[in-house]
Amino acid sequence: MSEGLFDGVLAAGPVAELVADRAWVQAMLDFEAALALASAAAGEIPAEAAAAIERCCRAEEYDIAELGAAAVGIGNPAGPLVRALTARVTPEAAAYVHLGATSQDVLDTAAMLVTARALTALRADLHACADRLAQLAAEHAGTVLAGRSLLQQAPPVTFGLTAAGWLGGVVAALDRIDTLLRERLAVQFGGAVGTLAALRGNGIFVSSELARRLGLAEPVLPWHTERSRIAEVAGVLGQTSGAVAKIARDVTLLAQTEIAEVSEQGPPGSGGSSTMPHKRNPVAAVLAAGSAAQAPGLVATLLGAAAHEHQRAAGSWHAEWRPLIELLRSTGSAVHWLRVCLDRLQIDAQRMRADLDSAGGRLLAEHVAIELVSASHGAVGRLEASGLVAECCRKAEATRTDLAEVLATTPAIAKFLSRGRIGELLEPAGYLGSTQEFIRRALRDRQSRL
Amino acid sequence: MSEGLFDGVLAAGPVAELVADRAWVQAMLDFEAALALASAAAGEIPAEAAAAIERCCRAEEYDIAELGAAAVGIGNPAGPLVRALTARVTPEAAAYVHLGATSQDVLDTAAMLVTARALTALRADLHACADRLAQLAAEHAGTVLAGRSLLQQAPPVTFGLTAAGWLGGVVAALDRIDTLLRERLAVQFGGAVGTLAALRGNGIFVSSELARRLGLAEPVLPWHTERSRIAEVAGVLGQTSGAVAKIARDVTLLAQTEIAEVSEQGPPGSGGSSTMPHKRNPVAAVLAAGSAAQAPGLVATLLGAAAHEHQRAAGSWHAEWRPLIELLRSTGSAVHWLRVCLDRLQIDAQRMRADLDSAGGRLLAEHVAIELVSASHGAVGRLEASGLVAECCRKAEATRTDLAEVLATTPAIAKFLSRGRIGELLEPAGYLGSTQEFIRRALRDRQSRL
Amino acid sequence: MSEGLFDGVLAAGPVAELVADRAWVQAMLDFEAALALASAAAGEIPAEAAAAIERCCRAEEYDIAELGAAAVGIGNPAGPLVRALTARVTPEAAAYVHLGATSQDVLDTAAMLVTARALTALRADLHACADRLAQLAAEHAGTVLAGRSLLQQAPPVTFGLTAAGWLGGVVAALDRIDTLLRERLAVQFGGAVGTLAALRGNGIFVSSELARRLGLAEPVLPWHTERSRIAEVAGVLGQTSGAVAKIARDVTLLAQTEIAEVSEQGPPGSGGSSTMPHKRNPVAAVLAAGSAAQAPGLVATLLGAAAHEHQRAAGSWHAEWRPLIELLRSTGSAVHWLRVCLDRLQIDAQRMRADLDSAGGRLLAEHVAIELVSASHGAVGRLEASGLVAECCRKAEATRTDLAEVLATTPAIAKFLSRGRIGELLEPAGYLGSTQEFIRRALRDRQSRL
Amino acid sequence: MSEGLFDGVLAAGPVAELVADRAWVQAMLDFEAALALASAAAGEIPAEAAAAIERCCRAEEYDIAELGAAAVGIGNPAGPLVRALTARVTPEAAAYVHLGATSQDVLDTAAMLVTARALTALRADLHACADRLAQLAAEHAGTVLAGRSLLQQAPPVTFGLTAAGWLGGVVAALDRIDTLLRERLAVQFGGAVGTLAALRGNGIFVSSELARRLGLAEPVLPWHTERSRIAEVAGVLGQTSGAVAKIARDVTLLAQTEIAEVSEQGPPGSGGSSTMPHKRNPVAAVLAAGSAAQAPGLVATLLGAAAHEHQRAAGSWHAEWRPLIELLRSTGSAVHWLRVCLDRLQIDAQRMRADLDSAGGRLLAEHVAIELVSASHGAVGRLEASGLVAECCRKAEATRTDLAEVLATTPAIAKFLSRGRIGELLEPAGYLGSTQEFIRRALRDRQSRL
Repeated sequence: MSEGLFDGVLAAGPVAELVADRAWVQAMLDFEAALALASAAAGEIPAEAAAAIERCCRAEEYDIAELGAAAVGIGNPAGPLVRALTARVTPEAAAYVHLGATSQDVLDTAAMLVTARALTALRADLHACADRLAQLAAEHAGTVLAGRSLLQQAPPVTFGLTAAGWLGGVVAALDRIDTLLRERLAVQFGGAVGTLAALRGNGIFVSSELARRLGLAEPVLPWHTERSRIAEVAGVLGQTSGAVAKIARDVTLLAQTEIAEVSEQGPPGSGGSSTMPHKRNPVAAVLAAGSAAQAPGLVATLLGAAAHEHQRAAGSWHAEWRPLIELLRSTGSAVHWLRVCLDRLQIDAQRMRADLDSAGGRLLAEHVAIELVSASHGAVGRLEASGLVAECCRKAEATRTDLAEVLATTPAIAKFLSRGRIGELLEPAGYLGSTQEFIRRALRDRQSRL
Repeated sequence: MSEGLFDGVLAAGPVAELVADRAWVQAMLDFEAALALASAAAGEIPAEAAAAIERCCRAEEYDIAELGAAAVGIGNPAGPLVRALTARVTPEAAAYVHLGATSQDVLDTAAMLVTARALTALRADLHACADRLAQLAAEHAGTVLAGRSLLQQAPPVTFGLTAAGWLGGVVAALDRIDTLLRERLAVQFGGAVGTLAALRGNGIFVSSELARRLGLAEPVLPWHTERSRIAEVAGVLGQTSGAVAKIARDVTLLAQTEIAEVSEQGPPGSGGSSTMPHKRNPVAAVLAAGSAAQAPGLVATLLGAAAHEHQRAAGSWHAEWRPLIELLRSTGSAVHWLRVCLDRLQIDAQRMRADLDSAGGRLLAEHVAIELVSASHGAVGRLEASGLVAECCRKAEATRTDLAEVLATTPAIAKFLSRGRIGELLEPAGYLGSTQEFIRRALRDRQSRL
Repeated sequence: MSEGLFDGVLAAGPVAELVADRAWVQAMLDFEAALALASAAAGEIPAEAAAAIERCCRAEEYDIAELGAAAVGIGNPAGPLVRALTARVTPEAAAYVHLGATSQDVLDTAAMLVTARALTALRADLHACADRLAQLAAEHAGTVLAGRSLLQQAPPVTFGLTAAGWLGGVVAALDRIDTLLRERLAVQFGGAVGTLAALRGNGIFVSSELARRLGLAEPVLPWHTERSRIAEVAGVLGQTSGAVAKIARDVTLLAQTEIAEVSEQGPPGSGGSSTMPHKRNPVAAVLAAGSAAQAPGLVATLLGAAAHEHQRAAGSWHAEWRPLIELLRSTGSAVHWLRVCLDRLQIDAQRMRADLDSAGGRLLAEHVAIELVSASHGAVGRLEASGLVAECCRKAEATRTDLAEVLATTPAIAKFLSRGRIGELLEPAGYLGSTQEFIRRALRDRQSRL
Repeated sequence: MSEGLFDGVLAAGPVAELVADRAWVQAMLDFEAALALASAAAGEIPAEAAAAIERCCRAEEYDIAELGAAAVGIGNPAGPLVRALTARVTPEAAAYVHLGATSQDVLDTAAMLVTARALTALRADLHACADRLAQLAAEHAGTVLAGRSLLQQAPPVTFGLTAAGWLGGVVAALDRIDTLLRERLAVQFGGAVGTLAALRGNGIFVSSELARRLGLAEPVLPWHTERSRIAEVAGVLGQTSGAVAKIARDVTLLAQTEIAEVSEQGPPGSGGSSTMPHKRNPVAAVLAAGSAAQAPGLVATLLGAAAHEHQRAAGSWHAEWRPLIELLRSTGSAVHWLRVCLDRLQIDAQRMRADLDSAGGRLLAEHVAIELVSASHGAVGRLEASGLVAECCRKAEATRTDLAEVLATTPAIAKFLSRGRIGELLEPAGYLGSTQEFIRRALRDRQSRL
């Protein structure tokens, strides 16, 4: 049993509790209570019985370990819970507990409730990340730093654009979470084989009522062995973890001692090392990355369990419970650590500029090449221009000469570009293209979705 | 190199060719052509140059093996293709090829085009599956067969309901494919670091034009290292493969020699066995299952590659190409084999009924128990009723007596249910609950989405 | 926090407790105690200090939830445990706690200890499975049943051969577990960056002593960011789960209502269904399958975390903890349920024979064809013979005639095979080839490895 | 069909051709030839027939596309190949082709042959990596550089130790490949259901002969639905890719513009960028990483296909072919690019030392703390010492003072450590612990396995 040794680091944030055993028991009981009330509304059971059942649907009154142990008999914990609930209600109500339902109805609907509640909490953390990223994008719209491709310095970007790019992944994840919450988390109610036979003519009425009371969508038909919903939940969480992983990777890279363009400033004691007192580990980003790395494998497990046999699967259903829980928990943890990371994030604009300047203009080589094509009205082709400038870069490096000087003294270039123009071309802030407009668009897009 | 030894079986259908090397080269050239035309529209390059470039953008004129070999220099095939294209156009146009773009722009946009084209073909196959399933659901709305849970016989369903359930998975997949095609497959255009610096003020205009010409969405900002789109494509394909896997599993199970309630009737030579001449293998379902099984791992690979560093990834980008191709191809194959399987599918309604009858009423035990609760006005509780009927089932089996007889002679039951009523309760067609309404809803839902 | 709602079904058997939080804390303390004693043996610390440290290394004295909460500071629970241990020992000993070690040394070595202990328990369950399978293979060496390929009936096998095949997978898993336990579970001890700098000249001596005291292998050099060992553990568990999955699948298939050649006879209450009292669900096989299905995705997560940066990973290390625990637990559960399943397994030899006979000889078609080639001394080729017999099968089925009769009256066959010979050829027990020798070999192989 | 657009980058090295379609056809034909010869040795077929069959077993004589297209009938390409072979041999030999075998025997044995040949080539590349790493470890045993944990600078290591650590992963992979090649790649030969019934008493003799002739192990019994061997191949390749991924990640990190302690010096044109002429991309490391990233998902697919039903799987068998090929190819590519990367690798020892020195002694903080504990004879405890030194580090940084000066003027430290001693403690080369011995051990270990 877990008492939380690794949970602080890998199950951080509000989601962990919302997917814990007690939350599952409560969600199962919520199903039973709503079913009783819906059945009463349909005239299937007396209203008093429904009320009596509802009163007994509080998770804290049940012994989880006992339910878990009893689950081995039929292979799931819903059966024992129904028995325990039946034993607890008034004798008059006992006959009306769980009417028309099967174990899978209870557990599948509980899975949807647990998912909805977990996603709602995760969504709040993710919105906080988006707010912080929007703020960073706006504040640092003009903070230049070296772009980097294949981990090599490249033409300049701004930190605002970087944050706007991060924001893009977060917004896309939020968008899909919202669609899921609105449309796809649906009640499962079909009885033994999905016909609702036990409820005769009233099945669909009860099903609708049940959905309404639980705040879940009503499906076209029971989905006990049609697991698209699970696949979608998995996909959305996988995508969300991926968005976190990208940001976390960038933060750890930008925070490297040798780059140090960002850092996490956490509370005393965080990010330190017992043996290396000087370190400022970006511990929140590291734990976000570690949490997010759980997702791809867990998504694969959930997708791999799709082939549910006939009207109830012989193993694939049982195979979903743990990975669903783990995936919600780990993605929740990833998002939470990202939020912490972004809250702690310090931007060192001076260091960014210094790193950029230390490249001595080489990162602007493309700018010179492009302008050369343009100024020569195409007399110098794109590939030729790139080649000429590249040669100048090599020469500047080999001879430890200023690149501007080398460019200005290369006849094929000097013919079209003046020394002054070359100076302008080598200024990072002058080679940012549509950066500002991209940032504005990202911020408008974020705003428009709120 | 692949000449197709396994492609007939595992890369069946129209998708394989649409994700093949030549399709990629064409998609890359489509990008270059559209970029040239968009740049001309923006006044960045002469219209004649654009026209000259466009004329050279036919994939069949390029040597794929040569491009592949040259790709090792910079690590991707876009660079060599740009060089080859530049060499092929008029000298006047050469300077205007690939203006403002970087290799990743070409390949990412090509990936979206390839995905769009592949999904469009896959979608047609999937619609054909949906049509056939809708037909089966309607035709067999009343064809009773044993429900089965954990591979054990359970209360009756109809084959129409089974088909409607299968349809549900297919419709959900189609829905997500449509959303993807409509909203999420977007052009990628950002230049070296995502700023479109080389195009100065014109970047966003060119980007819009490019998207419009290619029939792709225009993103809020370049997504070169924000891979949500790839994650969504992966998720949708994983879900689609899962929907196929479920149906294929059910078909192979229903086609078992001992059950034989369905069979595939393919052309001569299909489904046979060299060493077992009597066999009628459901080979299309088997290959659908084998193809669909590729998806979860490939989805994991794509999700696992999400953490693209800075402005271009040092490996994660390259890690996407093969699994994206494989996932499109294997899901296309799965869907295609499903279509073949459903076309070949023969339903043996007599055999279904016979299997149901051979259970001697035991599958209707729940019906009797439910009715007992109801007829006794709750005097017999749900659990008690189940226990009583279960006891009768055991007794009937042990003494090889007719279940109806045992039930009718059990006082606690006979007190509330007459012999005639018991006979009615044991009739499968009388215990189908909301089956017909569920089928109608599934068909209406399918119809409403067309 | 988990109180075990799903643990009864998906974390069954002895492994769950051995990978629980307390077991990890004990393993970490075992490291600290052994390190202190090894350091004392090396003369690095006083013997009294080591003894004082060792006395405080009992897991039950530590508050796990507190350690977990404190772990967020540096991102792992080893640091807080070291602090708690240091606070607990005598002031004289405090300076000698954890000497020369880093958090990763503690956790990696604990992971190896936890794995060793879990595998030892899992191995015992697996040996019990092997014993039972060997018994089934011997007892049912001659119990004929239909072979089945692609879920279609095929030439006969015996249940003993089936069990011997299952045994093969179990023996292969045991073999790899033994190799792992013997050779690859190694102590990790390297200090901050793997140089053991803090121990100056004594590092390797302490490391050897540490390994010896903990019963783990001594590695050639620290493996803090060389994760082959984790990959091997993952691979072995993945293979083990796969071996279980195959057997569980076969059991659920053989136990289908329509086949019913095997069944699980569990204690009262197991395998029942609240709504379907007649059912005899093979619940142990189902839970074995559900548990085993966790492995592939978890293996992928562990393999995907291989790229540990430099001397300590920025996320990939943290990414290993949960999947390692989950993989040990789920594989342990799979093996345990397999053991339960095999203990409960009832073989219905009569039903097996009846299913075989109901095929009316068609399953022996290959036998007739082979003999036809042989009796004709090659005059009838292999493909031709298959074709002839296949045609007879079709004719027998279409005309509802006895296959022997059809064969005996087909001239091209009757020319080489007498009616009497045809009768012999259609007897299942006469077409088992090397079945008995294969079973003997499997049993000898099992025996030789004990 | 693939003409190799992405193969240059992601299917590099000798393995790609060895797992291509033609190699599979040859391996299948090798099975048929060896089977004929083994059958002749057993007296089952005439020696002339065997010779005639063997003469037709050259892959170049068969039309692969035609075989692939014909495979759809029975669902695998072995059937069509057997037909094509039968049509090609002398009429006398035709009856003896494929005697006693089934399609799965051909394909499974071919899979083992293909794997053996691919692994043999991959192994050679991996040995070349090991040789180069051993050389780097020896040459740079004393080349100091900053250790790095969580991407933050840490106490010093040497590049030789880094290379020795990398070597550890490569040697472990080689070790497992060797075991696989020696023990686990086995012939599959069982006939329709694994009884070798068609060969009557001769089955086991033929099987042994077959194994001997093909250079594969002889299994205890047929393994057609016991897939441990596939799981082991998957695990070994997953581990090998992981070892590559770790090295590739480190190389790309060390090659970052801001660190530049290593670089790849490839042939002209490699590692360049069309738009960023100054770049020196570590393209081989990037492609090694991209190739290696394929493995975890593919391993999961292979492990997930373990549950082969009965005597032949209804989909899981077919599900193995592509991921097995892809996994061999991608791991082969990863290893090949690693070899290229290591061949190109330039070590900048001066830059390493400069980066280390720029930390101003902070990386040696641990050394001072350890010594403080020791020099104070435990009067200053471990945690206290770390705290004191950490405080000095902060003070030095805040006041931009030399760390040695701050330490020497801190009374609690100065009481036990002289200014001279502090200077010694801050020298990186003096704080390398067991580095040299670890390197020697790694080299000895490598040597001992040759």
